[in-house]
Formats: sequence, C-alpha cells, structure tokens
Amino acid sequence: MRFRPLVIALALIAHSVAFAADPLDGVRQYRLAHEKEILTELVSLLEIPNVARDRENIERNAAHLTAMLERRGIESRLLRVGDAPPVVFGKLDVPGATRTVVFYAHYDGQPAGEGWSSDPWTPVLRSGALDLGGKDLPWSALEGAIDPEWRVYARSASDDKGPIIAMLAALDALRAAGLRPSVNLRFFFEGEEEAGSDHLGAILEKYRDDLEADLWLFWDGPVHQSRRGQVVFGVRGVVGVELTTYGPARALHSGHYGNWAPNPASLLATLLSSMRDAEGRVLIDGFYDQVLPLGETERKALAAIPDADDDLRRSLALGGTEAGNARLVDRLMLPALNIRGIESGGVGGEARNAIPTVARASIDFRLVPDVTPAIVRDLVEKHIRAEGYHIVHDEPDAEARRRYAKIVRLDWEDGYPALRTPMDLPASRDVIAVIQEARGETIVAIPNLGGSLPLYLFGDILGAPLIVTPIVNHDNNQHAADENLRIRNLWDGIDMAALLMLRL
Amino acid sequence: MRFRPLVIALALIAHSVAFAADPLDGVRQYRLAHEKEILTELVSLLEIPNVARDRENIERNAAHLTAMLERRGIESRLLRVGDAPPVVFGKLDVPGATRTVVFYAHYDGQPAGEGWSSDPWTPVLRSGALDLGGKDLPWSALEGAIDPEWRVYARSASDDKGPIIAMLAALDALRAAGLRPSVNLRFFFEGEEEAGSDHLGAILEKYRDDLEADLWLFWDGPVHQSRRGQVVFGVRGVVGVELTTYGPARALHSGHYGNWAPNPASLLATLLSSMRDAEGRVLIDGFYDQVLPLGETERKALAAIPDADDDLRRSLALGGTEAGNARLVDRLMLPALNIRGIESGGVGGEARNAIPTVARASIDFRLVPDVTPAIVRDLVEKHIRAEGYHIVHDEPDAEARRRYAKIVRLDWEDGYPALRTPMDLPASRDVIAVIQEARGETIVAIPNLGGSLPLYLFGDILGAPLIVTPIVNHDNNQHAADENLRIRNLWDGIDMAALLMLRL
Repeated sequence: MRFRPLVIALALIAHSVAFAADPLDGVRQYRLAHEKEILTELVSLLEIPNVARDRENIERNAAHLTAMLERRGIESRLLRVGDAPPVVFGKLDVPGATRTVVFYAHYDGQPAGEGWSSDPWTPVLRSGALDLGGKDLPWSALEGAIDPEWRVYARSASDDKGPIIAMLAALDALRAAGLRPSVNLRFFFEGEEEAGSDHLGAILEKYRDDLEADLWLFWDGPVHQSRRGQVVFGVRGVVGVELTTYGPARALHSGHYGNWAPNPASLLATLLSSMRDAEGRVLIDGFYDQVLPLGETERKALAAIPDADDDLRRSLALGGTEAGNARLVDRLMLPALNIRGIESGGVGGEARNAIPTVARASIDFRLVPDVTPAIVRDLVEKHIRAEGYHIVHDEPDAEARRRYAKIVRLDWEDGYPALRTPMDLPASRDVIAVIQEARGETIVAIPNLGGSLPLYLFGDILGAPLIVTPIVNHDNNQHAADENLRIRNLWDGIDMAALLMLRL
Repeated sequence: MRFRPLVIALALIAHSVAFAADPLDGVRQYRLAHEKEILTELVSLLEIPNVARDRENIERNAAHLTAMLERRGIESRLLRVGDAPPVVFGKLDVPGATRTVVFYAHYDGQPAGEGWSSDPWTPVLRSGALDLGGKDLPWSALEGAIDPEWRVYARSASDDKGPIIAMLAALDALRAAGLRPSVNLRFFFEGEEEAGSDHLGAILEKYRDDLEADLWLFWDGPVHQSRRGQVVFGVRGVVGVELTTYGPARALHSGHYGNWAPNPASLLATLLSSMRDAEGRVLIDGFYDQVLPLGETERKALAAIPDADDDLRRSLALGGTEAGNARLVDRLMLPALNIRGIESGGVGGEARNAIPTVARASIDFRLVPDVTPAIVRDLVEKHIRAEGYHIVHDEPDAEARRRYAKIVRLDWEDGYPALRTPMDLPASRDVIAVIQEARGETIVAIPNLGGSLPLYLFGDILGAPLIVTPIVNHDNNQHAADENLRIRNLWDGIDMAALLMLRL
C-alpha cells in the first residue's frame, strides 16, 4: 500500500495548504447550494425506526439505503447471513485507481429508552442543544438560511446515520465539481452494530473476496469535546455481564424477617463494591496485568490532546471525576468496569417494606489491548468465587438455592477484544494529514476511542488496517434520550469525506 | 388493674384445663354452624380496595365496617382528623364490668405491587398455599365441608382484615352461647397503618377521653412460623430513607466516558456496602450503642421459643441466613438495615451502554428500644459525611452538583420508635395464660415482633399497656403478591378473641 508522503508534508502546515484550485471550494459550493436537499435526505432516513431486533423496519432501512446508493450509480447488494440484519454494501470502482478504501457506518441504532422530549423516530429541528435552551423550529425553516448551529434530533442522527449522509453528499459534491476519487470506493453499512454485531464475523468470512481493500475508514463515534476534528486508531473492546443475586424465594416483610433473611440488594451492593471502587479502580485481582503499555508515538499524541475536562465537568454538572480528576483521554487507555444498571425491589412510590427476592445488575467492561473477554470472564469469576459465591449460568432451582448460602447467576455476553492500529503506519500518517487539510486545523489524534466497535474482526479476518474518522458532535446524547446531530458537524463531515476520497 | 392469677395457674397445664362447661365448646359450635357466613362476611370486606391514599375506597371500607359494628348493636363512630382516613371506632359497655379492653386492627392495606396470580381485590378461594400446589376452588365449595387448610387470597386477607372478622365473629359466638364479656369492649380499626399512621397521634390526642382503657390488644402480624400461637409484647420501630446519588447531568456513553464520569450506581453500591455488610451487620459507627439490653424474663422467653429456622430456610430456598445462621428471634431483638429497593439505569432487555445520571435506594431501619429515629438519622448522616458526601434534602441544582464531587440526597420518613411492654406485668401474664387456654398449647411469647406498628403512641399519649395478639399464618405473603389467610388461623382467632373477651 502506497500513501503519498507529499500529503503529509503539506498537511503539516494545514492552514497554508493551497492547491491551484482548492477542491474544498467546489465541495462547499455544492453543499451550500444543496443544504436543504441533504438535510431532507437525512430526515427521510431517520424516520425509519432502526432497532436491530425490529427486523421489519431494519429491512425498510436496508431497502432505503440501497435506493440511496443506486440513485448515485453505486453498484449495491445486501450481504446476508441467515436472517440477521443485512449489511448494505456499495461498490464504485474508479478508472485507474489501484487502491480500495472502504467507508464503514452502521444504520441500526440503540433502543429508544426513556426521557425523550420528542418521538425518537420523528426528527425535530431545533435552534440549538435542548439543554442549552434550543427551541423547536419548523422544517420550513430550511427554505431560508440554515444556521449550522441548528440540530436535528432523532435516534441515530449522530450514531450512525448522519455519517452515511455525509459520505454520499461528498460523492455528489465531487461529481458536481468534476473531481474524480483517487481510490476505488466501497460502502459498508452494518445493521446490527448496536445489538453487538453478532453476525459481522460471519459476513466478513462469507464475503471476504468482495471486501478486499487497502484501508477501512470507520465513520462512527464523536469528534473531540473541544469540537476539533479527531482521528482514532483503535477502539476499546467490550464484554457485558448480567449478575443476579438471590434472597428468599418469596418477598418477605422486612420487619418480620429483616436482619435474618439475606437481602439480595445488599449482597449485590457488597459484591459490586468489591469489584470496583467509587473512583473507578477495578479491584479484581490481576485486572490490569495484561494491559499492553502505550508506544512512544501514542504517548506523545495523548500529551498533545487539548484538555477539555474542565468544560466537560461544568457541562455535565460534575463536581469531580474518577481517579482524582485524571484526564479523560488517559482514562480511556485503561480497561474499565461500568455499571449500566441495577435493580431490586422498588424505590420512591414503589418502595415496599419487603426484602426483595432477587437483585440484578448489568455491567459492561471496556477492554484495551491485550485484555480479552476471556481473560475478564476468568478473572471476574475467580473474584466472585473468592467472595464466597457459587456461580451458575442459568436460573438456579430451589434446590441449588438451598445448597449454597451465596449463589449468583452470571449471564455473559460474548463481547470482543480491543484493537489499535499503530499510529506510525504510512496510512495512519496520511489519514491524519488529509483530515487536517479538510478541517483546516490541527486535529486530535487518539490511540483508541473509549467506545467499542468490533474492529478486531477486520484485522483478524481481512487483515486490512483501519482507522476511525468521526464527524459528529461530542454532545450528541448518543445511546441516550434526545440524540441529536449539530448541522455544522454534518457539513464538516462532507468536506472530510470528499477530501479522503480525493487524496488517499 | 387486676388480672386474675387463677387463669395463669390453670393455663400452665393447658391441655387439662376443664371448666364445668368449657365456653370454647359453645364458641366452636357457633362457628361450625356459621363458617360459610363468616367467610362470606370476610370476602365482602376484602372486595373493597383499601390502599390508604385511595380515599374514596377507604371511606367505603369505613362505611362497610360501621355497618358491621352496628349490625351487632355496637355503638360506632368515625374518629377523624382533617381528611385523613378515619378510625372506625366501636364501643360496647358490659353491665358490671369495671375494666375496658380495646381491640385494635387496621383496615387499610399495602399497595398491590406486581406479580399477583389473581386480582388483589377479587378474593379467590384455594385448596392450599399456591406455592405448594394450591388450586382455585369455586366459592360454592363453601356449601360443603370447609377444609381449614383452604386459604383465602386477597390483599389484606391477613394484614389486617381477617382479624377484624375474627373479633366480630367471636362476639357473635359468645352471644349465641349466652356468655357475657367480662370487660367493656372497644374496637379501634385504623385506616392508614400501611401508609405510616401519620394521623394516629392526632386522633389519639383528640379522642383521648373516648379511648380511656386498661389494656390495648393489637391484632396484627403473624403467629409463629411453627404455626403455634404467639403473644408479642412489643414491636420494632421503623424509619425509612431514600438515598439518591448523582452521576453526569445527562446519560453518557459508557465507552466514551466510562472510567472518567462518576457512576452513580457504583457510588451507591459503595455507600450501601459501607453501611451494612452482606451478613446484616450495620457498619455505621455507634449504631448498636443505644440498644437496651433484654431483661431476664425476656431472655428466658426467647430461649423457650421453638426453633423453626431450618424449616423456614427450606421453605424460602435459602442456603443460609445472615449472621451465620443466627436464630431469627434473636435477630429481631436488634436494630436492622433493610434495602427495600435499588434502581439505576436499566438491566436485562433495558440495559444500555450508558452511565446512568442517578441511582436511588430505598432503605428501612428497624428499631428497638432505645434506638430512636432521631438517633438513626444523626448516625447515618454522620457516616455518610465521613464517606465524603455533601448531604442535601431536596433535589440539588446543577450548581450544587458542580460544587461537590460527592453529593447525596436523603429523603427521610418521620418514622417512629420501638415499644416493649414488660413481660412480667400482671396483664402480660394474664394474656399469655388466656391465649394458651384458647389454643390448648404452650404458646410462644416474644419480647418484640420484628415488624413495626406505632405502638409507642399509645404509651406516650394514653399511658395504657398494650400487647400484640396475632392470629394469621406466618406464610401469608403480607406486603407482597398473593397475600392470603389460612382458614384454620381464622377459626383459631375466633376462639382466642372469645376467650379474651370472657376472661380478662
């Protein structure tokens, strides 16, 4: 693979880069003339509910995306294994191009969850972030001048349908400007990323030949909290587990039996606090032993990242963060234990004077090289056994519950390991340079993102390097209520996609 | 107050007690002839929903009870303060009687909660306990022979409407047998016991003159787990608190921010486990310092209680109980911390890869003399401050959340202290003896019940001694789904009420 060192040299002085005719001028002229059209295409895509288990709507999304590709003359097909949500795949060869770059995004989204200000699949245009006083705007506002600080609220606006719109609008813009991509293009839109990408490995195996490429670009995740562009060379892995502890077989009056019958919520609180302290330190023996130390390039990149922590804490109403206010970027280089949820008995108006029968907690572990799901599972189970528990993986019957004073059910997700592409590969340096040029600013380069994607599969199965190239705003509420996309981030994404297609 | 020592002497050999004409014969003849009628009166009462905040139905209950009293020629009135659920009060003076005994019960019930096998306010007759294979029976089964192992399923069947039926049926039986109570009778049916008896003190103050009496008998709570009768000389007090811990102002992606943003569920688990270990020991400094040691009579009574713990553990599918399988009766002499519920984020299908914004736990403390709610509140807040928290009692605004790295909201219930009537009072000895006679067995005498009733008010305001005389089955699921009353316990209650009315 040959990436042009020229680009690097030019990009080092990004602001002064000037081609005879700056291709970004053409791209931006096209975009300015078609903003309403681009946003309308986004809204149409967001209107289709996209939770991976909702197969009927997933197929509607796939058909809609296929039509979007074909409208642009991109050869498209659905990559399927069994009845899993299909991958929407697009192929556009460029005469004379010798290398192939795949643009990845996913079209499924997180379940809606509670607390939305408007229906998750009825996009709403707002004048800014809701929590900073953003007001609803009519869609007819797109007829006039469009303020790039406006936001589109909907599930998957940012995670991860917005990036799909950016890629395709970029292609339209290049064509309108008479510019030809320098590489063969592939589009790979996954349909069950938020559900854990259970079939991604099988799809990569099955379609290995169609997926041959020199580089994968992953369009997912947010830009830096400072709103500067960023490029990410890896992701954390993840593995989840649900823990269930047991009290009496039936709920008991907390007066008549309290202080005698085991309280499953108390057992669970004690167990969880033995696994992780309130400062984020995982207390499981050996948990940090396999962590691969960072290289010199990665350490320098981290040190160069602007510090947004104070602003973030203020915006999140936090009086402090874990590990004594240690830097966010440094924390994301470590494996972590997050409690996603905990539930037992009732609180508030639902509280009853009773000892609950069970308590459940849902946990995710974020992983870094070389801490694998298998290692975590092994260490966690060892830890829990050392706490005196008998571990089961199915619902224990009454006899099992009688046999063991402390019994816990663990339901493990398969999970997947982390992946980091070395930052000193030629492709790594090229991508940094092109994105700096597109954005006209020094961007943030991060050894790995905090979030998780099954990138290890691409390395394992296809052997191609991959780099994450996010575009969406950091305050997009992804995975929560009121997910949104700041329009300026979409415009920046179009510039970025166009220049990547043109320069790699 | 003079209670007859003769009864005690006789009762010591309970099985051989034989009066010229045993009044229990008459009571039982009446009951046998009227079982269907008695159960029908119970069902009519259970059909009226009775959650204290449902004022319309509470008034329907009060009117129904008033009619039940008046049908029996008992002078009745509603004792009211403000718009609180009224006390249904009945008065029946007996010519020649010099002492007055009040029979207490409450007619309100716990909210339904989840998990019922049938509607909580549509009584269902079953052939036995549901979890032991009990089957639905048609109500027409009451036309034939009634098996005392049958059960009536409904909210408040045991807690606490069944006892009301027992008292009134006992009075009917005495009259049918031509027997006259030895004491003036009062009936005091409270309407907001399960909601915390917030107005009980005001009612006792307001109607102090009407409520003058020599002894209060509290018909509430279950008999011993061995199914033997028991008499209880006190109750634990109670005070509840809801704890809320705070994470980021909005839910954050657990990958991008996990290991940095404080996790409120982790904070709460750590805080709870600092307050109570999994063996039930409260770790709050000074928590046990004010516990009044038991007297000699009480210690002997405890030692004489038959041990039902193994059976209970088996029935509850428990492999062990707290404090290394210490005896239930001994555990109930101590103050306790029970987690009623805990909630944060989502579990199971609701789990999302997000850091929750808040975590909440609902706790009740069970109290014994002389650990008061004020003492507990003080110790708990000291403990939580020592854990580094800033305590607030209302929802903290963003500024407060920014100011303190650890902030917790505490919502305290008022609660009330415990009460124990000394077991060596003459009235105490008399009640034990009469109940032993009624049941024909050595009964269990307990210094205090594990559960809580606001009995301290009667001591504080009225100055009368009081004793708890439970009748319902221990496995009645009170405060939970599928509450029920075993019919034999109702029959035993009628015997007991009749003999108490006749002999005190």
